Amino acid sequence: MSSIFGQNLKISVFGESHGPAIGVVLDGLPSGILLDFEKISHEMGRRKPNTGAYSTKRKEADEVEILSGVYQGRTTGTPLCAMIRNEDAHSMDYSELERLMRPGHADFTGHVRYKGFNDIRGGGHFSARLTAPIVFAGAVAKHILDQQDIVIGSHIDTIYDIKDVSFNKAEITPQQLNSLREMDIPVIDASCRTAYLETIEEARKRGDSVGGIVETAIVGLPVGLGSPLFNNLEARLSSMLFSIPAVKGVEFGEGFSITTLFGSEANDSFYTHNERVLTRTNHNGGINGGIANGMPIVMRVALKPTPSISTEQETVDIKALENATLKIRGRHDACIVPRAVPVIEAACAIALCDMLIGQFGLDTFCEGDQE
Amino acid sequence: MSSIFGQNLKISVFGESHGPAIGVVLDGLPSGILLDFEKISHEMGRRKPNTGAYSTKRKEADEVEILSGVYQGRTTGTPLCAMIRNEDAHSMDYSELERLMRPGHADFTGHVRYKGFNDIRGGGHFSARLTAPIVFAGAVAKHILDQQDIVIGSHIDTIYDIKDVSFNKAEITPQQLNSLREMDIPVIDASCRTAYLETIEEARKRGDSVGGIVETAIVGLPVGLGSPLFNNLEARLSSMLFSIPAVKGVEFGEGFSITTLFGSEANDSFYTHNERVLTRTNHNGGINGGIANGMPIVMRVALKPTPSISTEQETVDIKALENATLKIRGRHDACIVPRAVPVIEAACAIALCDMLIGQFGLDTFCEGDQE
Amino acid sequence: MSSIFGQNLKISVFGESHGPAIGVVLDGLPSGILLDFEKISHEMGRRKPNTGAYSTKRKEADEVEILSGVYQGRTTGTPLCAMIRNEDAHSMDYSELERLMRPGHADFTGHVRYKGFNDIRGGGHFSARLTAPIVFAGAVAKHILDQQDIVIGSHIDTIYDIKDVSFNKAEITPQQLNSLREMDIPVIDASCRTAYLETIEEARKRGDSVGGIVETAIVGLPVGLGSPLFNNLEARLSSMLFSIPAVKGVEFGEGFSITTLFGSEANDSFYTHNERVLTRTNHNGGINGGIANGMPIVMRVALKPTPSISTEQETVDIKALENATLKIRGRHDACIVPRAVPVIEAACAIALCDMLIGQFGLDTFCEGDQE
Amino acid sequence: MSSIFGQNLKISVFGESHGPAIGVVLDGLPSGILLDFEKISHEMGRRKPNTGAYSTKRKEADEVEILSGVYQGRTTGTPLCAMIRNEDAHSMDYSELERLMRPGHADFTGHVRYKGFNDIRGGGHFSARLTAPIVFAGAVAKHILDQQDIVIGSHIDTIYDIKDVSFNKAEITPQQLNSLREMDIPVIDASCRTAYLETIEEARKRGDSVGGIVETAIVGLPVGLGSPLFNNLEARLSSMLFSIPAVKGVEFGEGFSITTLFGSEANDSFYTHNERVLTRTNHNGGINGGIANGMPIVMRVALKPTPSISTEQETVDIKALENATLKIRGRHDACIVPRAVPVIEAACAIALCDMLIGQFGLDTFCEGDQE
Repeated sequence: MSSIFGQNLKISVFGESHGPAIGVVLDGLPSGILLDFEKISHEMGRRKPNTGAYSTKRKEADEVEILSGVYQGRTTGTPLCAMIRNEDAHSMDYSELERLMRPGHADFTGHVRYKGFNDIRGGGHFSARLTAPIVFAGAVAKHILDQQDIVIGSHIDTIYDIKDVSFNKAEITPQQLNSLREMDIPVIDASCRTAYLETIEEARKRGDSVGGIVETAIVGLPVGLGSPLFNNLEARLSSMLFSIPAVKGVEFGEGFSITTLFGSEANDSFYTHNERVLTRTNHNGGINGGIANGMPIVMRVALKPTPSISTEQETVDIKALENATLKIRGRHDACIVPRAVPVIEAACAIALCDMLIGQFGLDTFCEGDQE
Repeated sequence: MSSIFGQNLKISVFGESHGPAIGVVLDGLPSGILLDFEKISHEMGRRKPNTGAYSTKRKEADEVEILSGVYQGRTTGTPLCAMIRNEDAHSMDYSELERLMRPGHADFTGHVRYKGFNDIRGGGHFSARLTAPIVFAGAVAKHILDQQDIVIGSHIDTIYDIKDVSFNKAEITPQQLNSLREMDIPVIDASCRTAYLETIEEARKRGDSVGGIVETAIVGLPVGLGSPLFNNLEARLSSMLFSIPAVKGVEFGEGFSITTLFGSEANDSFYTHNERVLTRTNHNGGINGGIANGMPIVMRVALKPTPSISTEQETVDIKALENATLKIRGRHDACIVPRAVPVIEAACAIALCDMLIGQFGLDTFCEGDQE
Repeated sequence: MSSIFGQNLKISVFGESHGPAIGVVLDGLPSGILLDFEKISHEMGRRKPNTGAYSTKRKEADEVEILSGVYQGRTTGTPLCAMIRNEDAHSMDYSELERLMRPGHADFTGHVRYKGFNDIRGGGHFSARLTAPIVFAGAVAKHILDQQDIVIGSHIDTIYDIKDVSFNKAEITPQQLNSLREMDIPVIDASCRTAYLETIEEARKRGDSVGGIVETAIVGLPVGLGSPLFNNLEARLSSMLFSIPAVKGVEFGEGFSITTLFGSEANDSFYTHNERVLTRTNHNGGINGGIANGMPIVMRVALKPTPSISTEQETVDIKALENATLKIRGRHDACIVPRAVPVIEAACAIALCDMLIGQFGLDTFCEGDQE
Repeated sequence: MSSIFGQNLKISVFGESHGPAIGVVLDGLPSGILLDFEKISHEMGRRKPNTGAYSTKRKEADEVEILSGVYQGRTTGTPLCAMIRNEDAHSMDYSELERLMRPGHADFTGHVRYKGFNDIRGGGHFSARLTAPIVFAGAVAKHILDQQDIVIGSHIDTIYDIKDVSFNKAEITPQQLNSLREMDIPVIDASCRTAYLETIEEARKRGDSVGGIVETAIVGLPVGLGSPLFNNLEARLSSMLFSIPAVKGVEFGEGFSITTLFGSEANDSFYTHNERVLTRTNHNGGINGGIANGMPIVMRVALKPTPSISTEQETVDIKALENATLKIRGRHDACIVPRAVPVIEAACAIALCDMLIGQFGLDTFCEGDQE
């Protein structure tokens, strides 16, 4: 019931799309982490609207100002606050949006939840713009994971009716994930890139939008990370993933398709290799009983088509409490899936850092010795 | 990272499959709730292994003893502890299971997580038997929801390759959900019952197992329940659902299929009816921006085939760290989906009570006025 | 283990004394609260170093910029971030302070806790300057309490060996507390003001410092606020109060002196008056079993003399690990007790709002109806 | 607002004085801890009412049954539930106590808090009997601390007007603390024992009661344990200590008396000794800025005279809402201070284990390697 996530590494996200600023406080970071601002910029850049056909025309400088928690380039261990000013917000007339609830958006539910006092401009605190501070926090978390040789990467599995090939779940490498992180439209089958862009462009032309599926993998997690029952690895990751706007489904390993297998097929047989315990298949996505088993964690996340479309829609006038029609003006993405990829990875990185620090202690992650 | 869930109504689950007892503490209950032990028994009975073909032969009395928190039949408001003795545990030889890790189970991850000190008999704290106290807690939570005219119900959407018809998401009634709660194999299309049982029986005969999908709906939730970002309605529900053993996927509304719709199709248009705001379709499953919009909440949960199968499997001997084969003896379900239905509903009920109490205050739910 | 406090209304404090900015995120505020910036300024002003003899010479503009969570003058209900730039920080040479640990300060413990990576300039995140965002958050919380006719006020009970008269615990009025809030040196016996200032001035002249005791009262709390055992009213208040730098003792009602009474004296007899239940004495400070009984809450808080003194002190050089002497230069208060008064009240207000929202629900405190 | 305490090691306490059982769940324990039941019995015995003059005549078997979380004598790492049956509860007539609120007790506040549904027999969940499971949990926590050479010990500083000598704060040894733990009436000046018992006996004869002060010390804590601001060492300890019934004051180091010192006196000078940093005095009680500095932690806790006295008292009849008189019958302690000593130590041990696990990770405390 709040915009704070985490038990050991906590993040507190604040801001509205058209208010003075958005940002995040990271509380519980290890000290001595040398921040790599190039890496952070790269991650922020992946989320940023760009000149591609599929993306909003809003220019976001997304220049992060660090207000606290960093001294001489390293984390102090005390709360790190990062702020991004909202600069390119149009001072348009919002009186219509105060009355006409955009279908598929949180306008109506936000209105009721906050008794009409929420800032509706650009979606306020519900805006996808709030994923920018999450990506920042995720970039810091990814850096901590990198130090432990834990790598997160993703490809766009599906856009509307076009599908990339899937990860070979038992054989994902850090190299593969890192190279996906460098692509603007990360795909395994390179031919999908064009097909995805064409599908998005077609939707855009019609004033419509499309969604898709992101498949994300994590390699290098220590065996034993997690717990039975509540707050297990799947529970924590899904909790973060469903916090991302537009996510409507999350599955691990074979996910929903595992129901088409018999137990004898779904079970991943163990074997030993170089004194390590591995599984031959990875239908369970690297997780048994809510705990990492050392195989790649694989998950798929479904993102709905962005509800901001320019065709006329039926809705209600919340002040008059009567039916009405709405035509949404202004810039918006025809598909947010490519921009969602770094957000999904950031969400995973934050949840993992939180769990790792909780289980192994803060000192394990302090870079003090490397000074 | 713990067996405690909740922020306002907290549940603390304890016990191992073959230890002295399992149980749950409910902390933060409203006072004055008149417990309906018949209802509780009914819910416990739904989860209980029975004489049906699909279920384990273990007889569980599952007789709940309430140790605290109830006085003169009503909740006191102080912690309610319910305990279930483990009575029918075989005192078999577990030395093999200490060495041979059952594929698909948490034996290996539990071994690493707890450095070999966990109680491996029957899966210990990872055992599906731990869902019994969750169902108890859920029965109490359901009772509180009932008082607010909030009803949860489910049908078995899929077993292996057999599929029931789906909920008509925009038109689910409390009556429909209540009647599903009375069926041993809850289905919408009655003919599925036999087909499901046959599919399970076939798997059982082959010493194999099958999984399936449960579709659950909630009607009557107050508009505005939830929050943006973290700990929103989808995040909280999924966090609880992924805490249930065997769950590998969770989706809301159209879920993964929503990616096959255009934005113009996926958006649920608003309209007014009797001074209320409704949506014509319900592809978003009653949730916009993480907050209930007043339409039925609809979710689907994928359960993998139970990993306990009697055919021989490849695995490792964890003590010798070498490859081995394993043949699991003893009783086990060929399909846990029917027994998972009340667990899924309990998980939802607990998460919802926690959120409702947090947002609307404890006093709203105290039945003090009825004294 | 973090700079986040609260369960329902959460505050996340960030910043270092000499970093770019300090601030606070308030998460979980009711929506629709009309902020009274004059009141907020008044509270900030009470904490601000001033021209008085007892106070540091550092000029703090303490101009709060609200970055989020306020729209058209009212809280949106989404996170409110308030930021204060650090402007008057001297860019002096801190190399000595990196080595020489100031006695009585957190220099040494902070050095170990953060492996030498903490920002030591001006005490960093340990600086009393961090109480400014707490006072801001407290001003917002006080405003919410005001709406419920809950009033907090304090007087300086003791400075070194000078003592004010105590509250008459059973007969404290909102008027008395409000008038104390208007005084720069709040006292019941007006003659104490001069005596206090003289005592402080004497210490200052000698390059030394003095501490004192603040007695704080709260009237108007609803009977029944709190819980048995953990997180009760005394536990929550003390937890916040011990978070204030320099606090070394907290007591409720008669506190330590209650041990000089017999049970027959310490028990506060109940009686009825105008259909309400009151107590004739108030030795228990308005709290029985961790729950408010409707009488004024009375507590006393001991503040040690500020450790920043200008006389030479023995200490260690942490880099060389050898004994050394230190003479602290620069501005500092000879007594922080007067400036601590609004901080103590803010701490109480925040803890109470958190508890009230948790017990009575967010909607009780939303000012939506007044729109 | 709950009977659950802790962030990493969580304890969930349940039960009412006259219900079926009381108990505690410890969630988040390290695995592999070999429980020493003799030590646990010793701690439970210290809290138990005995044949001494000062104590209630209720015979408590306090036989702990461990329901989960222990396998082959060692902690499994999964939740440990310990239950104590209530056996010697008189089935007396409680109708008077339902109406007449005992002064100084939680009868009235509990009645309002729980809308009259709480179990009032023997104080229900507010009963000091609930400290038995806390002492059990504390015994487990103490064992974990012992493995790290962290020792907690206490003496009774004051009973009514009799005072023991104080700890020499800078020179407390593990030996001194361990030997205090063996005494029934732990004192530094042996002559106090008789004086204390006489004072208590005098009060008892008059049907009255007396309170006192316990001084507790902790040696061996790692330097750097704690955090600035919220949830610091003093905040966490005080939060637990104020959860103990009858506690009305908590102070660290010189506590309230530190206000009688000048800064130049209150500051504890650092010096080096054998490559360690120590302080010459210990007025700050081993804590600077909320973090352990390596010196003994010293705190004092004020306990009010037990409100259960046999002399007639004024009170109200809560049902009739009119004034009344009350004469409490039955057994009760004339002084609970001696029995509170192990409870205070348990509270400290639990809070410290929680903080240590949070900061240093669960694995640090697992005894896996010692198998």
